[in-house]
Amino acid sequence: MGDEHAAPQPPVRFETHPDKYRHWKLELPAEHGGAVARLVMNVPEDGGLRPGYPLKLNSYDLGVDVELADALQRIRFEHPEVKAVVVTSGKDRIFCSGANIYMLGSSTHAFKVNFCKFTNETRLYLEEMSAESGIPSLCAVNGTASGGGYELAIACDEIVLADDGSTAVSLPEAPLLGVLPGTGGLTRLVDKRKVRRDLADVFSTVAEGVRGKRAVEWGIVDEAPPKAKFDEAVKRRAAAMVARSKRKPFKAVTLPALDAKRSDAGVEYKYVSLAIDRAARTATLTVRAPSSGNQGDGKQPASPAELAAAGAGAWCIRAFRELDDALLDLRINQLDVGVVALKTSGDAAAVVAIDEMLAANKDDGLVREVLLLQRRVLKRLDLTAKSFFALVEPGSCFAGSLLELALAADRVYMLQPDDGEVTLRVSPLNAGAFPMSNGLTRLQSRFLKEPERVSRVLEHTAPIDTQAALDLGLVTFAPDEIDWDDEIRIAFEERASMSPDAMTGMEASLRYGGPETMETKIFGRLTAWQNWIFQRPNAVGERGALTLYGKPERPEFDFRRT
Amino acid sequence: MGDEHAAPQPPVRFETHPDKYRHWKLELPAEHGGAVARLVMNVPEDGGLRPGYPLKLNSYDLGVDVELADALQRIRFEHPEVKAVVVTSGKDRIFCSGANIYMLGSSTHAFKVNFCKFTNETRLYLEEMSAESGIPSLCAVNGTASGGGYELAIACDEIVLADDGSTAVSLPEAPLLGVLPGTGGLTRLVDKRKVRRDLADVFSTVAEGVRGKRAVEWGIVDEAPPKAKFDEAVKRRAAAMVARSKRKPFKAVTLPALDAKRSDAGVEYKYVSLAIDRAARTATLTVRAPSSGNQGDGKQPASPAELAAAGAGAWCIRAFRELDDALLDLRINQLDVGVVALKTSGDAAAVVAIDEMLAANKDDGLVREVLLLQRRVLKRLDLTAKSFFALVEPGSCFAGSLLELALAADRVYMLQPDDGEVTLRVSPLNAGAFPMSNGLTRLQSRFLKEPERVSRVLEHTAPIDTQAALDLGLVTFAPDEIDWDDEIRIAFEERASMSPDAMTGMEASLRYGGPETMETKIFGRLTAWQNWIFQRPNAVGERGALTLYGKPERPEFDFRRT
Repeated sequence: MGDEHAAPQPPVRFETHPDKYRHWKLELPAEHGGAVARLVMNVPEDGGLRPGYPLKLNSYDLGVDVELADALQRIRFEHPEVKAVVVTSGKDRIFCSGANIYMLGSSTHAFKVNFCKFTNETRLYLEEMSAESGIPSLCAVNGTASGGGYELAIACDEIVLADDGSTAVSLPEAPLLGVLPGTGGLTRLVDKRKVRRDLADVFSTVAEGVRGKRAVEWGIVDEAPPKAKFDEAVKRRAAAMVARSKRKPFKAVTLPALDAKRSDAGVEYKYVSLAIDRAARTATLTVRAPSSGNQGDGKQPASPAELAAAGAGAWCIRAFRELDDALLDLRINQLDVGVVALKTSGDAAAVVAIDEMLAANKDDGLVREVLLLQRRVLKRLDLTAKSFFALVEPGSCFAGSLLELALAADRVYMLQPDDGEVTLRVSPLNAGAFPMSNGLTRLQSRFLKEPERVSRVLEHTAPIDTQAALDLGLVTFAPDEIDWDDEIRIAFEERASMSPDAMTGMEASLRYGGPETMETKIFGRLTAWQNWIFQRPNAVGERGALTLYGKPERPEFDFRRT
Repeated sequence: MGDEHAAPQPPVRFETHPDKYRHWKLELPAEHGGAVARLVMNVPEDGGLRPGYPLKLNSYDLGVDVELADALQRIRFEHPEVKAVVVTSGKDRIFCSGANIYMLGSSTHAFKVNFCKFTNETRLYLEEMSAESGIPSLCAVNGTASGGGYELAIACDEIVLADDGSTAVSLPEAPLLGVLPGTGGLTRLVDKRKVRRDLADVFSTVAEGVRGKRAVEWGIVDEAPPKAKFDEAVKRRAAAMVARSKRKPFKAVTLPALDAKRSDAGVEYKYVSLAIDRAARTATLTVRAPSSGNQGDGKQPASPAELAAAGAGAWCIRAFRELDDALLDLRINQLDVGVVALKTSGDAAAVVAIDEMLAANKDDGLVREVLLLQRRVLKRLDLTAKSFFALVEPGSCFAGSLLELALAADRVYMLQPDDGEVTLRVSPLNAGAFPMSNGLTRLQSRFLKEPERVSRVLEHTAPIDTQAALDLGLVTFAPDEIDWDDEIRIAFEERASMSPDAMTGMEASLRYGGPETMETKIFGRLTAWQNWIFQRPNAVGERGALTLYGKPERPEFDFRRT
């Protein structure tokens, strides 16, 4: 398997632009007056991120999904006129055949798992666009949709399937490959579309899938018009989506390239630094607040109008885009890093001022998108399989939106200074702007036992010193200056020495106390089963089904049930 | 690892009796007048179910847990005077050191997973006794409790820890063994005791654990009196539990041995048959209704008084005890069986009459225990990692409590007869007596999309023929007599040919649509992560932490994070 034989791979980059897309087109057809974005998937066979697997039949790899994620982000910021998304295929008779099997078969376990996590996040972005931004989505399945192809469709609000007597939707992963439809497919079948569990069982075990009438009857698609009436049905549904969209207008914001400076030691962005210590298998991720006043970064926007004028250069957009890129780099390109120090620096008052402006104008169209961007990046942090320890030191700026970094961390270390002050600070955004995947804020997740502590923290609008932070329950340990260096060093060394798998499973369990949502079920339950299966000889062994896919030999299973 | 080297193992039997216990004592101390059951764990080193691992330091294997499960069942039925349970150790200075590591290290993956599932179920029984039967539990931790030892404690309502300056509670699985505290430990920390997530992180990564004062402060135990005051604290809390117990009195019911007839072809009980087809890797599990009238089984009890007189011979107790034993046999001893036909036979009216009596008297102490027994067995069915297809044929008796078997199945095949009738039937017990682990009834889980269908089914008190069952949504497929044999044969052959791992992960996902509970989080999320880790070289490889535990070599990890 990949784990043993894979050569070192070039790093994956997550920045792109519609001008560079090879797999998708982002179209704004005139017939809807620009209110509908058509995302057309047309993957060239030689378009793989890495060599060795032709991307036949609109199958995808990470590179394809990076473009889709970029397109969704650009629809949010650069196309405020868009009120509905239609996802379709640019190929004849094939919508999408899912993740490329040869890519999966030749990937390391860590890459497979991180690939699935990214695609899962992108599918959830489609759902968030509908629920939070007033941009519903329609999947126009104009050819066979199998596996990840159907999983892309089911992430949309509505699915229209062209019924030409042969086109089918299917989840052939279990019967053909011995793995799961792990990009949310099983969960969304029973939890989102609420397909009856026995019908879901049949659908998920019949490799050839189901066609038009049965697919509608079982609730697997919404409508299956004959091919001749397909375009009309898509148009009608897209128009209805536009009509019911609650999207708020705002001036388009262009997202420029981040111009990161990358070296072997890490990545430098304007507001974010990622420093890697390879020998220690640790990293330091620092987010800097904007300089206050009129120097340095210039004045940060004090109103939605100023935010629109500042555009993507505004700290509240740029810093979080940078943080997002750094987290993805950590996940995919820095596999050996086990423990990450989360640091912040700068002027807490500046961050709180920005947060207050955003909170006061949360119904503004652009402000809403900024808050959703920040929310998504913070969720990406929660879902990153590294241990995060926040370090609160003199000069730190864990305030408001940046306080969330500490609240997302597995532990918070805060210096108890001899003199002077080290502080944390809340802003109105800590009260509800950034729910985790489980629907709770990070403060609520922290204080499941004593929910009244949440309001006690939020009332504390002045800077919170170390003793107060301890008393409020915001801090794990508060070493004094004599102990700080040793205690931090030992904590990082110990953590970095532990089994990375045990840490991943432990953190996935401890970070999400309380309620579950479809989102946490996808990342917690479904993903964990898929990861297990991705390790099983029945899938990835020499005679496993994934390994032998497309080869003349039939897989051989160890039939012992666990 | 075990998977390659393990010799065939003798089958595990799940029936036992206090007279045969080697590991536990069930005491009814005079000081509480018989109202408190003391379960005292004192595991002899040579008491392992299989040779090769001395059970040092009150560590346990499956045999130890089989006794605990039996003791809990007997407290329910044979000791109606018991109103609280105290779990403690019979050893000096050690409470329990958890699952035996050498047993885990030498077990096959399938055995490890099934062992953990059974221990998880037993922990949940403690919680169900408290929530549903009015029998709260107290863990008297009179010595070090590590790993599964603390996980046993946290399954009790309250934990008292003897504070002698050295006794600690700990979860050393992650730091020492590279695996998870997978018997509910991580989930219960944050979801039941609601320990703050960062403190839970520290607790779960510090191998030596935490002691008295800190354990109380962090919410890991409830009280940590000095050793001299320990007995007094335990007595005080147990007395308070007795005082608040809402247990209903009833006449004790002795649980006799089931006297199963076992052969290579399967198991024959009075009301249950398990027939194994090894070549096909399938089994048929049949449950028979009692004969009606005064012949055969005699009249089934028509009132709580008659039930008390009939005791454990009553069909409603005996048939479900037999079914429970058969399910455990399937899980642990019949690993190669992938698909199970669920069949029933007999007089539906007799089952409905029994169900109606139970439903009408659900507040009676003994009736309550019978319904809880049935509920637990049906949950065990949901949680069994085999594909279940219910076959509804002429002479079937899928009625009321036995209709739940069909509703628990992954698919329901019902014959569409040429003439004559094949029927299903509901009873009042289908309306709420048997919630699944997710808190929903099986009818509610089936009709997540159209909840109004639940009442439509429940209103249908007459026998439901095939067409009506199809219309109501109770049946997956209804082949006619010409197609039946072929369709069933092909369905079983196909299912039995698929990757058993993919089926296990798929069924775990599709069976539990809708809400999650602590229970589903333990079986879905935590167990899936643990199963993954149990497959990872970092735990079970030649240089893995679990493999090398107790050996002079240190584990070597592949530090790539997934």
